[in-house]
Amino acid sequence: MSLLERAKRLFRTTQDQIVTALEELEDGVKFQTDQWERPDLVNGYGGGGVSRLLQNGAIFEQAGVNFSAVHGHLPIEMGVKLLADQSISEPVPFIATGISLVIHPLSPLIPTTHANYRFLQVGSKQWFGGGGDLTPYVLFDEDAKHFHRVLKGECDRFNSDFYPRFKNWCDEYFYLPHRHEARGIGGIFFDYLGRETTEPDFFEKTYDFVATLCSTWVDTYLPIVKRRKSMSWSEEQRQFQLQRRGRYVEFNLLYDRGTKFGLSTGGRIQSIFMSLPPLAAWDPHEAGSVDLNTDAGRLLQVLRQPREWV
Amino acid sequence: MSLLERAKRLFRTTQDQIVTALEELEDGVKFQTDQWERPDLVNGYGGGGVSRLLQNGAIFEQAGVNFSAVHGHLPIEMGVKLLADQSISEPVPFIATGISLVIHPLSPLIPTTHANYRFLQVGSKQWFGGGGDLTPYVLFDEDAKHFHRVLKGECDRFNSDFYPRFKNWCDEYFYLPHRHEARGIGGIFFDYLGRETTEPDFFEKTYDFVATLCSTWVDTYLPIVKRRKSMSWSEEQRQFQLQRRGRYVEFNLLYDRGTKFGLSTGGRIQSIFMSLPPLAAWDPHEAGSVDLNTDAGRLLQVLRQPREWV
Repeated sequence: MSLLERAKRLFRTTQDQIVTALEELEDGVKFQTDQWERPDLVNGYGGGGVSRLLQNGAIFEQAGVNFSAVHGHLPIEMGVKLLADQSISEPVPFIATGISLVIHPLSPLIPTTHANYRFLQVGSKQWFGGGGDLTPYVLFDEDAKHFHRVLKGECDRFNSDFYPRFKNWCDEYFYLPHRHEARGIGGIFFDYLGRETTEPDFFEKTYDFVATLCSTWVDTYLPIVKRRKSMSWSEEQRQFQLQRRGRYVEFNLLYDRGTKFGLSTGGRIQSIFMSLPPLAAWDPHEAGSVDLNTDAGRLLQVLRQPREWV
Repeated sequence: MSLLERAKRLFRTTQDQIVTALEELEDGVKFQTDQWERPDLVNGYGGGGVSRLLQNGAIFEQAGVNFSAVHGHLPIEMGVKLLADQSISEPVPFIATGISLVIHPLSPLIPTTHANYRFLQVGSKQWFGGGGDLTPYVLFDEDAKHFHRVLKGECDRFNSDFYPRFKNWCDEYFYLPHRHEARGIGGIFFDYLGRETTEPDFFEKTYDFVATLCSTWVDTYLPIVKRRKSMSWSEEQRQFQLQRRGRYVEFNLLYDRGTKFGLSTGGRIQSIFMSLPPLAAWDPHEAGSVDLNTDAGRLLQVLRQPREWV
């Protein structure tokens, strides 16, 4: 089976595993399934996918887990960028498959999380990319450490350079310059893994790395959910969560590459905007200076200055 | 008094008039005042302003009316764009003063409205720009016609070309390509008015035009508020409003020039994001095809195909 087919199967299987694991935490609220296909190329690409969406659960206000496999031709500008090759002068054929998930819990004590793993073939190159990150609204050091410790463990099994590199990459990527804040407490993020490789077994090892991240995703996040799901929260904490979700929207619409890529290639709005929270708030009078001894202050300190968690 | 000083006084006076008129509709909820100053240049500009914000009123969930007068140097790219002059090779000195308002009513039966009038001096050129537009959540033809009729009347007093030109400009500007929808039912929008003029009394006439638009702003919007403020609305209409506010956020973060200008010049976040609604929703499962005989369907038809209202 080709690497592409194996990657597709991996992402599709991971989607089922994650959906099952999340449904087990909910008391009867299920994911809806939206299988979509674009048989003809529209705006240069076609393909299909399976979108799974859970709404208004007792724990998860919204959870989206999407699988897709698309192909077509990239606009020249995008080809130049993705291949880091200025000499490109015509649309580049591409195939991309991936899994993407964003989970917005109802309780402000449970962090939002996002993960995305993907495999791309662009022209004669191919690579893996992706990562996972955590966005708490009330900071529990225990949860942040757990999330990073599991990710570091998975990375270290493959390459001791991975975690420090990918942790920094994540901190740099999920940053809102206009707020001078990170979106959350990070995780890992990597891209173009294998694009320039000449090692014969590089893709075999990288496939295993990504497969490990996929199969252990539940271990990074679900223990946190289980620890927090029965804790009660205040209306004030909920309001703060809704405002921080506003920042999530700001990041995704102002900076996120996936959103820009999707919108500029005429992507599927339902899938692209699955990452947006079901409800978000903005308050222009939101305090500019926050008491650093409050929960909000402790969180903001970490968002302004990323921390080493393990 | 210089044109600049007159424009400043006009916008500052207009701010007071509008705030007073809006407060008269509220039963005791008042605007807060935030006077700010940036004595030194930061990111190339300084100056000051007065932000007025009303929150959690019985009618207005949030109303922001901002005045500002700033100066500094525009980044080269911005200078090239604003002066439409490719030969610019260094930061261009500028002075800008304006009034900007965004009103998000609580009731989904009362439309959101936005207006902005400004005067700029950039290098050796100067011009007026601005406009006002309406974003209903439930479409009352009567309200849309009123809004456009008043604006057309004001335009026609100065130049019979203004309304048709500025109405189209508005329809083109407030458009979300990824949704294939306008943000609302438009109004008027114009920019660079006077930048290329050689007419000796052009600025005198244009000042009068902008002053008329400022002083009659209350006539465009308040009759609509008064007509709708005592009508009851359903939870379903409120949900629809919150989702449409999501579109408002999408426009402002993805496309709005003012937002981009503000963020790229290190502008004041509280002022730039005053336009964002206090609460907004997204639903990835939002119906792609809407029954055109429902209220939502009637609105969407107009958003997809702008109408001539007068």
